[in-house]
Amino acid sequence: MRNYLAEFFGTFWLVFGGCGSALFAAGIPGLGIGYAGVALAFGLTVVTMAYGVGHISGGHFNPAVSFGLVAAGRFPARQLIPYIISQVLGAVAAAAVLYLIVSNNTTTPFAIDNTKAGAFAANGYGDLSPHGYTLIAAFVAEFVLTAFFLIVICGASDKFSSKGFTGLAIGLCLTLIHLISIPITNTSVNPARSTSQALFAGGAYLPQLWLFWVAPIAGGIVGGLIYKYLLELSPDGQAN
Amino acid sequence: MRNYLAEFFGTFWLVFGGCGSALFAAGIPGLGIGYAGVALAFGLTVVTMAYGVGHISGGHFNPAVSFGLVAAGRFPARQLIPYIISQVLGAVAAAAVLYLIVSNNTTTPFAIDNTKAGAFAANGYGDLSPHGYTLIAAFVAEFVLTAFFLIVICGASDKFSSKGFTGLAIGLCLTLIHLISIPITNTSVNPARSTSQALFAGGAYLPQLWLFWVAPIAGGIVGGLIYKYLLELSPDGQAN
Amino acid sequence: MRNYLAEFFGTFWLVFGGCGSALFAAGIPGLGIGYAGVALAFGLTVVTMAYGVGHISGGHFNPAVSFGLVAAGRFPARQLIPYIISQVLGAVAAAAVLYLIVSNNTTTPFAIDNTKAGAFAANGYGDLSPHGYTLIAAFVAEFVLTAFFLIVICGASDKFSSKGFTGLAIGLCLTLIHLISIPITNTSVNPARSTSQALFAGGAYLPQLWLFWVAPIAGGIVGGLIYKYLLELSPDGQAN
Amino acid sequence: MRNYLAEFFGTFWLVFGGCGSALFAAGIPGLGIGYAGVALAFGLTVVTMAYGVGHISGGHFNPAVSFGLVAAGRFPARQLIPYIISQVLGAVAAAAVLYLIVSNNTTTPFAIDNTKAGAFAANGYGDLSPHGYTLIAAFVAEFVLTAFFLIVICGASDKFSSKGFTGLAIGLCLTLIHLISIPITNTSVNPARSTSQALFAGGAYLPQLWLFWVAPIAGGIVGGLIYKYLLELSPDGQAN
Repeated sequence: MRNYLAEFFGTFWLVFGGCGSALFAAGIPGLGIGYAGVALAFGLTVVTMAYGVGHISGGHFNPAVSFGLVAAGRFPARQLIPYIISQVLGAVAAAAVLYLIVSNNTTTPFAIDNTKAGAFAANGYGDLSPHGYTLIAAFVAEFVLTAFFLIVICGASDKFSSKGFTGLAIGLCLTLIHLISIPITNTSVNPARSTSQALFAGGAYLPQLWLFWVAPIAGGIVGGLIYKYLLELSPDGQAN
Repeated sequence: MRNYLAEFFGTFWLVFGGCGSALFAAGIPGLGIGYAGVALAFGLTVVTMAYGVGHISGGHFNPAVSFGLVAAGRFPARQLIPYIISQVLGAVAAAAVLYLIVSNNTTTPFAIDNTKAGAFAANGYGDLSPHGYTLIAAFVAEFVLTAFFLIVICGASDKFSSKGFTGLAIGLCLTLIHLISIPITNTSVNPARSTSQALFAGGAYLPQLWLFWVAPIAGGIVGGLIYKYLLELSPDGQAN
Repeated sequence: MRNYLAEFFGTFWLVFGGCGSALFAAGIPGLGIGYAGVALAFGLTVVTMAYGVGHISGGHFNPAVSFGLVAAGRFPARQLIPYIISQVLGAVAAAAVLYLIVSNNTTTPFAIDNTKAGAFAANGYGDLSPHGYTLIAAFVAEFVLTAFFLIVICGASDKFSSKGFTGLAIGLCLTLIHLISIPITNTSVNPARSTSQALFAGGAYLPQLWLFWVAPIAGGIVGGLIYKYLLELSPDGQAN
Repeated sequence: MRNYLAEFFGTFWLVFGGCGSALFAAGIPGLGIGYAGVALAFGLTVVTMAYGVGHISGGHFNPAVSFGLVAAGRFPARQLIPYIISQVLGAVAAAAVLYLIVSNNTTTPFAIDNTKAGAFAANGYGDLSPHGYTLIAAFVAEFVLTAFFLIVICGASDKFSSKGFTGLAIGLCLTLIHLISIPITNTSVNPARSTSQALFAGGAYLPQLWLFWVAPIAGGIVGGLIYKYLLELSPDGQAN
């Protein structure tokens, strides 16, 4: 059970920290943390929980990561469902606490205008893309970014890579992914994070949620397969 | 005695660096470091002192951390009082030096308007929240953030986690916490840091100080208990 | 073959992440990541791929690095051509995907005005320098920065340096290089990255491309020689 | 000789990267890296060179650090003079290259108005403080910051601290120091860095240079003594 609880708390932290920093601190004029600060926050949720509970569950915190690790032969398929359930529950719990905090604000009256991009830090494309990227751009970006996320994850946790740096490399990869793509889709690469925010944002976000399951999971599987079949060294460390 | 001195100097550095960066550098138009820079500064005080004196005292620098580690069975309760005294004294000494520097400024005449949010980098809620968050929002945020801070602290210092990365993970967790919550309470999660700034800010800040002892310490204890009873692996490394 | 594929995917990621963050996220008013965010993105592409595939190919992702490592006696000259081909192909593939995403944007109509500095994140000097630096300034900056990049690369991968930190030091060095020089040339220090962007930007960028092969490679070779002949310790670790 | 050359190249990089980022990239409207970016650049010069040449010379790059390490019993006093000469020569060489680059700029005509604060990234107090801090504030800040810099340096390189993280902790400490104090003195804590910039800025900066030798060196010595006599564990690792 402790591995499922680790995924629950880790994904809670990812959504609470990443989406929370976006909601509370990104857009304050002159002092706000902007997209770069949000990118750093998302990455640090993974850095901190990778060292915090990574030794318990492997530190996925993301259904696309779990799928990709199955594809790479690193994670047993029978664990997929309980991991994904733990991740989605953690994400939804975090979104609920974020909702509670945002609701207790006296100066900016709480309003989620879910006809606009970025409501409750939700992911979107087309009309709900932060800066006007179409479904095609959104799908390509989410697919490519999750594929490379999995290449980095598989490589940084490879027995031939440097010991101990796995969590740092993976978390900073999530920061990098956000530095690139917040303007495109508000950055998902994580179906659990997209689901929790779409549920609370509601409205037009729900019919778009499919993309943030399909593209990251497809990308994650492709990334896992690329690492396994095109990059992974032979057991004796040969590149040929 | 050296562990108490380590806590004194470490907490001095946390307040001098974190609150100092906020006072001197956060709000300068066009060039200032903003909330993201202050978040980085707070985190780096802990990163630097964790590697600087962590091997001497364990590197708490925060009464809520000491309480949480007692709850997690990692720190002896009889050391709580001398640690907390060392931490508060270090914080107050740092605030005094900050006061001296701010007082020796010729262009911006020194004035702490303690009827406004953020005076002398102090923590507050309601009227003294930087962006209008109520007591309820402030309490929930401080409680949840300190609880997860302790989960990360306990996990990153676990014998099954990566050796050497403890200080980095914990310091970057404090950066993350500030990226999320400076707009809510100016971020405490640390009663010593709140006390020193409230003493120098004075006025309306003093009657609010209770929350920044109660919420972080309660959150820290809950976080320590969550790690111990829900997450910590058995001595042979099993998750069940 | 796996080392060539590692260089292909690593250089793809460097261009996709570094140039992509510049194209999508740098200049958004109020929220954009600015030059500092782009600098962080470039560095993190190398940090993540150094831990991801560095154990497979050595993690060059840059023809100037491959040349410099030959000069330093760390890399066989016969591998130069296949490495550089892999790097340029990876860079061009990434630029093609960036082009696809940028083309699928509805609010900012896709237009590369290649008479202006920074088009498609391409490198330039004189009229195409982001802030008016001449050919001389551009050459000196690219030469000096690549020379020091190689000193850091050779030193951080030296057997006497700290194990495991190589990828972090090298990636953060690329961040540092961008913090200094984006205003000068949009920062190359990498002929593959310059080539892919000049091909898609076209126009006035192509006649300037020579500088971003000559200066980085010359600097890289000089940096490699400086490390080997002026800095490298004797095999028994003596500085004399 | 290689240790002196390592100090020369390391201090060159500190000035070229730190002061260069300030000169070229800090103040560009909307996109510039600001004080936080300059703080990151200074810190990364030390991170990169600590892993690059730290194993050759110890990685001081700063006369105040060399003095402090003598006080802490970590560095032989007879090496002070050649180290400081190497450091100052490296700093001056870097400033000369920066001058060459800045002089080759066509849009912003090169002008160092050395009656204003921050000219050529030089350090100053009073009229030459970036934001109006007096001599007293400047002295206190430089003294306290260098003292804590040395505490972190001595502690992070202590045999009881985590292996390998020394360079990261020390470099990030320099970032932290800049996050705090750029508005006060443009941040020195390093007489070599102050000397090179004052020489090229000239004018009113030269009569102020004394403070940026006296305060950092005095602070460095006090920090080294604090670590040695108040913090350092006994050889068997006891805190009492």
